[in-house]
Amino acid sequence: MFDPVEKLKEFIRHPSVSTDSKHREGMRGAREFVSGLLGSLGFAVEVVPTDLHPIIFAQRGGDPSWPHVVIYGHYDVQPADPLNLWKTPAFEPTIVGNRIYGRGAADNKGPLLTNIAAVALALEENPRLPLRITFLVEGEEEMGSPSFPKFLAHYADRLRQADFVYLSDTALPNENQVVLTCGLRGLSLFDVHVTGAKGDLHSGLHGGVLRNPIQALAEILATLHNPDGSVNVPGFYDAVLDVHPWERDELKKLGADEKAYAQFLGIDTFYTPPGYSPFEAVRFQPTLEFNGIGGGYQGEGTKTVIPSKAFAKISCRLVPNQVPNTIRQLVQDAIRARTPSGVKVEFVDQHKGDPYVVVPPGRSNTPAGQSPVLARAFQATEQAVTEVWGRPPVYLREGGSVPIIADIKRTTGLDSVMLGLFLPEDNLHAPNESFNLDVMRKGTETTRRMLHALAKR
Amino acid sequence: MFDPVEKLKEFIRHPSVSTDSKHREGMRGAREFVSGLLGSLGFAVEVVPTDLHPIIFAQRGGDPSWPHVVIYGHYDVQPADPLNLWKTPAFEPTIVGNRIYGRGAADNKGPLLTNIAAVALALEENPRLPLRITFLVEGEEEMGSPSFPKFLAHYADRLRQADFVYLSDTALPNENQVVLTCGLRGLSLFDVHVTGAKGDLHSGLHGGVLRNPIQALAEILATLHNPDGSVNVPGFYDAVLDVHPWERDELKKLGADEKAYAQFLGIDTFYTPPGYSPFEAVRFQPTLEFNGIGGGYQGEGTKTVIPSKAFAKISCRLVPNQVPNTIRQLVQDAIRARTPSGVKVEFVDQHKGDPYVVVPPGRSNTPAGQSPVLARAFQATEQAVTEVWGRPPVYLREGGSVPIIADIKRTTGLDSVMLGLFLPEDNLHAPNESFNLDVMRKGTETTRRMLHALAKR
Repeated sequence: MFDPVEKLKEFIRHPSVSTDSKHREGMRGAREFVSGLLGSLGFAVEVVPTDLHPIIFAQRGGDPSWPHVVIYGHYDVQPADPLNLWKTPAFEPTIVGNRIYGRGAADNKGPLLTNIAAVALALEENPRLPLRITFLVEGEEEMGSPSFPKFLAHYADRLRQADFVYLSDTALPNENQVVLTCGLRGLSLFDVHVTGAKGDLHSGLHGGVLRNPIQALAEILATLHNPDGSVNVPGFYDAVLDVHPWERDELKKLGADEKAYAQFLGIDTFYTPPGYSPFEAVRFQPTLEFNGIGGGYQGEGTKTVIPSKAFAKISCRLVPNQVPNTIRQLVQDAIRARTPSGVKVEFVDQHKGDPYVVVPPGRSNTPAGQSPVLARAFQATEQAVTEVWGRPPVYLREGGSVPIIADIKRTTGLDSVMLGLFLPEDNLHAPNESFNLDVMRKGTETTRRMLHALAKR
Repeated sequence: MFDPVEKLKEFIRHPSVSTDSKHREGMRGAREFVSGLLGSLGFAVEVVPTDLHPIIFAQRGGDPSWPHVVIYGHYDVQPADPLNLWKTPAFEPTIVGNRIYGRGAADNKGPLLTNIAAVALALEENPRLPLRITFLVEGEEEMGSPSFPKFLAHYADRLRQADFVYLSDTALPNENQVVLTCGLRGLSLFDVHVTGAKGDLHSGLHGGVLRNPIQALAEILATLHNPDGSVNVPGFYDAVLDVHPWERDELKKLGADEKAYAQFLGIDTFYTPPGYSPFEAVRFQPTLEFNGIGGGYQGEGTKTVIPSKAFAKISCRLVPNQVPNTIRQLVQDAIRARTPSGVKVEFVDQHKGDPYVVVPPGRSNTPAGQSPVLARAFQATEQAVTEVWGRPPVYLREGGSVPIIADIKRTTGLDSVMLGLFLPEDNLHAPNESFNLDVMRKGTETTRRMLHALAKR
């Protein structure tokens, strides 16, 4: 059996930033790392070419009557910038106490390796484990999985032979309380570009006669929220489903501490839509966020220019049953309608993903027709969590997005069991990302037990 | 006599960007170029050290009864970025037709060299020219002349012995019509920084619970103008003086073409304060502009982050009698009062400068007590312009700022005669800056004639 921590170090050293073409070599390294590791465990590895970053599809076949789990993960990571805020190099894994630091440590290299290690252990303990296992590891998650629909179109038939998807790409609130994630927000992203004069202009010679694109952009963006924090776009909330009462009950079990959360974020005041606590807002409500803004002179000192252009990067997080294309259209229509004279506005669409929700067995309103193996998988996971962590998991939706989960459901009918493994303090998508090695050990043990339990009939 | 165009090429090749410490060598080169050239003309050159970029103070003495002109210019230039928008290298002078391209070609290396060439010619023609001439060439104009007040405190006594200041650092509307600039806007610049959470956050895991600094910044900036384009800051216009009727009359002489101006800027619609034409607004009205904005992820693709920080660079252009510190305080007070909960706001003050106006002789409301040499200098310049360009100059205020002109007036009592030499199409402060070589030739001839006329008594 390999040493999971050493393997994780090796994995992190490959700078697999999917959105940045400079990191093609890091992508190749991470991909070869994963396919090599799965091959060494006896999996039949296919590296499926796509228009951009290939997908690893690795199978352990078996008797068609055996339960069949698809374990999902991704080998790509977020960009590491701003690099100057990292205390240790982003792609040089560094262990401090019980944490390993590095870009991708938590999202998703650590959790993926946790599940690979669990499979390795289970197969070492029982080489004839009556389980079919498929690893599905993509390289475009952090850019919205643009190649995944085409992949699904070709592999849907093979995926339909499985019973459920299992993954660890979601969060737990603290290291003592596991969450089985039963819902994810969707996404719709685009850039808005505002253009004024045909070139940058001297703000003395021409200031006072034309609309500054930064001013126009600020005025547009300022209209997109109401003072209460809700999104001010007609129709934005029309498709939002009410939250089930059992979901609010489950959330209460967490006993989450608002004060501690505010302190963790480093803010004085929350800013949530009316009627929602912070913990509810992040799970049950959609958002419209500004991820970036730029225009004009941003350097040292001053440059007295009226810029020709300004832009903002906008992302909406969506909840069932909002439709990404519809929301994008509504927001872009609102922006167009609110663009002042003297500037023109253009959009560059980025990626999108549907929201997702699965109702775990035993909840009052469990829909009919769920697969019996899915129900057993939830029960096995719940049991394993309770044994390893000393308390049962709670079932919660999460604010993040894993768009392919909804894509798989729509295309193949498969639901997902999502064992959250990263902590709020893991700094996902931010400098000094890290992963808790105790969580890694417990996660490995949990998945190992789940696999054995599922195999027993 | 040297070849002014060859000398200008040499001058442009020194990348003298004062705001950027990377260009220290370029600053040194430009400074040595100017002091060497003035030295070769027989001037006694002092290179006066300052806290940052030394000031060149070069004198041709003479009989105390001779008129004494101080010729002002600056050897520093604006940053050249965005470099990718330059069609020829910014610091490699390139002549195309009757234009020379390069950063600083028009602002201020070309016009300064025009006046140096005129002095060289006049002294060649009459080595005993009965004129005292002082060159005052600074290296911090593009950063707001921070060292100038200290310099003035030490050199005020020597400057008070002069009669007036002469410079070419302002504009003419087209190459057939000279403007003698009789007013300049002041400046007040600062950066505003908005901070939310203590670090960048994942917009899925935390989106919907806190105020995004980009949103807060956009909301703040959007309050700073009224829909009619006027500045929405209490007290902003309180000190603004009414325009003299002769100024509006003078502007009418220009016969400026709004349609051509809009086409030049590449805009469909002007956006001026109510009651002002574009040509009036830029000269007679103050502004509040956004020169830059930044925050969050600005790279390729997407990064779904809630940034911790966002900032904007703000500049106000001021008209008599607005006071830079007062205006800055009013705007910052308004921003503070309009900052929403959940974020904090901080300011970094940049440079500032007083507005300036001088009333040329013969205008109905010419103030008493103007120096007779100043009146003769205006008359000599008007005469020279009329001879060289075939039509008399118009007297206009300009939208740009040369803060030291007001500083000199306040400290020494000296007024300035400003012969505009750059054209709207010269792209000051923008990529592909250039200077018209016909204007350079005519400007040299104009200043040459003015010097000879002033020397005759």
